Amino acid sequence: MPHFSFEYSANLENMIDIGKLCSVIRESAIETGLFPMPGIRVRGFKAEHYSIANGDEKHAFIDLSIRLREGRPQDMKDAATKIIFEAVKQFMTPALEQHSIAVSIEMRDIDATLSPKTGTIRDHLPT
Amino acid sequence: MPHFSFEYSANLENMIDIGKLCSVIRESAIETGLFPMPGIRVRGFKAEHYSIANGDEKHAFIDLSIRLREGRPQDMKDAATKIIFEAVKQFMTPALEQHSIAVSIEMRDIDATLSPKTGTIRDHLPT
Amino acid sequence: MPHFSFEYSANLENMIDIGKLCSVIRESAIETGLFPMPGIRVRGFKAEHYSIANGDEKHAFIDLSIRLREGRPQDMKDAATKIIFEAVKQFMTPALEQHSIAVSIEMRDIDATLSPKTGTIRDHLPT
Repeated sequence: MPHFSFEYSANLENMIDIGKLCSVIRESAIETGLFPMPGIRVRGFKAEHYSIANGDEKHAFIDLSIRLREGRPQDMKDAATKIIFEAVKQFMTPALEQHSIAVSIEMRDIDATLSPKTGTIRDHLPT
Repeated sequence: MPHFSFEYSANLENMIDIGKLCSVIRESAIETGLFPMPGIRVRGFKAEHYSIANGDEKHAFIDLSIRLREGRPQDMKDAATKIIFEAVKQFMTPALEQHSIAVSIEMRDIDATLSPKTGTIRDHLPT
Repeated sequence: MPHFSFEYSANLENMIDIGKLCSVIRESAIETGLFPMPGIRVRGFKAEHYSIANGDEKHAFIDLSIRLREGRPQDMKDAATKIIFEAVKQFMTPALEQHSIAVSIEMRDIDATLSPKTGTIRDHLPT
């Protein structure tokens, strides 16, 4: 059920390893204890076109949206957001020290009544 | 007005025909009777980078977001979601039987007061 | 803090200059006075796969999502949406006169309690 979808400017690929970042987010999401592992889906989308702040092409960004089925208590969501944010920040520290980058996260609920789902991932996990 | 935007892992392109899926979603949306045909916009975005469940690269996902102008009754939205979900599931059945795939849909309202629009599609439709 | 993220059908690249559109949106966002310049992040995502209205491949779309930290008065958000919408429409007028295109904008709030952020863009702006 939990979705971790991020957008990033194409120039970020010269600053960090995007595939590795996906793993970092997935592992930190498991660590929170809030999300069942089989439902975790992390993915990133590169923007070839972007324009940031004063328009200087050196600026980069990454913006992570976390969506989860409604019903979790606010303090647990807050704690999970913090854990994931810290993991992202730590992974990006060397890049942040060198480059002009904006990092942001937003968590929001999914309306459970209008969000059907199915799938076979659990059948393909090691037992 | 209705938007059908889905995200999918790049490996799904080896499992289903993404262009055909766009048509399936568009046709099922028309079938619901809830959405005016000229306003239907289906599109898909491939994630080159992703990390799912235990991180095994065989896992795939598709996640469809449906957005519509607020004001429709809940039971009509629920029925429309079900029709579209069934169409997607049916189209994907052969792939689901073979592969590890997560399928999800979320429908949500658009705040009508902060969503201007314009366009010329109606002028280009056959009469 | 403000995010301007748009999706568009791949065929729109033959009708308008997407990079220039990013600048137009960024400049109109600054013009509204509602958004601090260093926080503005405009980006566009091309959909290679899409299916619009009656499915004719000549149809195109662009759909802009604006997200901002909650707390701004409704009338200011409404005014800002209008300014940005007008700038987009004006930039696209020659294309709209020739082609079948749907243009839409949606503005929505970000829950401030679940949206941490960090970054170094302000350190890299000219003083």
